[in-house]
Amino acid sequence: MDQHHQSTTTNSAALTLTTPLHCIVKLGGSAITCKNELETINENNLSTVSSQLRQGMILGPSQGMDWSRRPGSLDIPTVVDEVDDRLASNPKKFLVVHGAGSFGHFQASKSGVHKGGLSRPLVKSGFVATRISVTTLNLEIIRALAREGIPSIGMSPFSCGWTTSERNIAVADTSTVVKAIDAGFVPVLHGDAVLDNSQGCTILSGDVIISHLAEQLRPDYVVFLTDVFGVYDRPPTEPDAVLLREIGVREDGSWSVLQPKLQDTSRQVEITVAAHDTTGGMVTKISEAAMIAKLGIDVYIVKAATDHSARALKGKLTDDIPDGWLGTVIRLAK
Amino acid sequence: MDQHHQSTTTNSAALTLTTPLHCIVKLGGSAITCKNELETINENNLSTVSSQLRQGMILGPSQGMDWSRRPGSLDIPTVVDEVDDRLASNPKKFLVVHGAGSFGHFQASKSGVHKGGLSRPLVKSGFVATRISVTTLNLEIIRALAREGIPSIGMSPFSCGWTTSERNIAVADTSTVVKAIDAGFVPVLHGDAVLDNSQGCTILSGDVIISHLAEQLRPDYVVFLTDVFGVYDRPPTEPDAVLLREIGVREDGSWSVLQPKLQDTSRQVEITVAAHDTTGGMVTKISEAAMIAKLGIDVYIVKAATDHSARALKGKLTDDIPDGWLGTVIRLAK
Repeated sequence: MDQHHQSTTTNSAALTLTTPLHCIVKLGGSAITCKNELETINENNLSTVSSQLRQGMILGPSQGMDWSRRPGSLDIPTVVDEVDDRLASNPKKFLVVHGAGSFGHFQASKSGVHKGGLSRPLVKSGFVATRISVTTLNLEIIRALAREGIPSIGMSPFSCGWTTSERNIAVADTSTVVKAIDAGFVPVLHGDAVLDNSQGCTILSGDVIISHLAEQLRPDYVVFLTDVFGVYDRPPTEPDAVLLREIGVREDGSWSVLQPKLQDTSRQVEITVAAHDTTGGMVTKISEAAMIAKLGIDVYIVKAATDHSARALKGKLTDDIPDGWLGTVIRLAK
Repeated sequence: MDQHHQSTTTNSAALTLTTPLHCIVKLGGSAITCKNELETINENNLSTVSSQLRQGMILGPSQGMDWSRRPGSLDIPTVVDEVDDRLASNPKKFLVVHGAGSFGHFQASKSGVHKGGLSRPLVKSGFVATRISVTTLNLEIIRALAREGIPSIGMSPFSCGWTTSERNIAVADTSTVVKAIDAGFVPVLHGDAVLDNSQGCTILSGDVIISHLAEQLRPDYVVFLTDVFGVYDRPPTEPDAVLLREIGVREDGSWSVLQPKLQDTSRQVEITVAAHDTTGGMVTKISEAAMIAKLGIDVYIVKAATDHSARALKGKLTDDIPDGWLGTVIRLAK
């Protein structure tokens, strides 16, 4: 995604959270959907991730909150009588943003929603079709989280009134998100088709939403759940790819690999060169994460539904990174 | 529903529509769902209503905008290449609000969401479960409208940041709705679980939303689609029930039946007495409609998916009510 950030000076007075936000989690599209199968959820991963999120929140016994029929099923969940009012707990505050994966991309790219031009029927149709697809995914994620007892609330950026201008965030008032968190809910936002003041419409990506929310809400840390162990120095499918364990970000936003010590200094150069790659790969991800780390917020990029993601979600990495942990930490260089 | 109105003085500066809003349509829960079957859509009615809406909007040839897989199906709609950019038209502006029917009610009533108390796990669970159910219905309605080529956009009152205070609307900014209409979309709102400043949470009903939007956006007329021919002087299942054809509303909000001339004046009295009925029946509906009619906006209450609803949606009743038309007109008495 080639969207850029700008300071959101147009954002109206932000509400302050009563209890600080503990963690923002990005559910990467590749981690929770089957990338090469249109509109197919990776049910196993989504279920494990939901369970790990519940443990990270310290939610206590699971109380299913999805009382709706499953698509195609006549069975009615009858969990309602099991809810025990004595079980009130004080969980840590989480916020979730998810990508699109195999939802939305097909519709958006077929119609060119990101390029704008809502007066064209094809673009308008694609806008509607994209929102149908991404909100379908959002609803399925809400239901998976609710089945784990996470009080999740779907919130579409479009409905929240978020808009862009020249594809940068123009208005993204977080007061409704703040109110939902304060009321004890876990808002679940997503990459969405939105209105753009200059070109009519565009796609607001999940990663841009994460950066904006991290800046506004200042969580203790941010976790990106993905389908590989972290950030590599080259495509992880290549045999000599090296997992970057720690990336240090300086206050001017520049960054360098701290762990492992790359023997070959040309590696560092390759990573810099790859910054010109526009496919939204590794370097885009590092740049987005560096924006957040610059604020003093640790970022963990980790493979979803593994012991490593479980540790990251529990906040076990904030003091010290254990040797056995696989993933990428991106944080302010000391 | 025993919610009451108050003037929404807390509503922030309303944006003005570039093109006036032509019509607000209420899709009654009883008209588009099977009332006695949990979470079951009345597919035939919904499909016919969608088609009638398209005709009312004067949308031109149908261009399917739902490019997603149907639940349980592997088929991918391949309508994308059929979209013809030359077919740009200038349809009339519509806005849709739907009720819950057999979606949401079960979850809301089991947990008492309308009575508030979010600190109780049962209420919080019910809030999440209610929103899952009503947004599932919303998504299915969006898809049905999109299949007809109506550029529909789901907008949940919760996500729009709408809140209540003592169960009356406190904040319900319509600027995002206005922007969506101006961009050529048909916003589709719904009765929703929302946060309440005084009691924590409540249910904001579709009828209250309609009144608020009618007041703010001043459509030419409002159509309530329901499962009976209109408003009767007694439950329509009773053999001597009389369809009230025309109700006149005075500027003080009081109303009386103009057509048919009720020979028996005690009938009029019975209707007034029934106002004490709290089941949200006929008189509640008349009162809500009278609030709108008082603003000079005609209200038609009509059976969904009939020739009568088709006429109402096309705006064929604004000058003269044809003899053959079955339904109830509620308007300012001249």
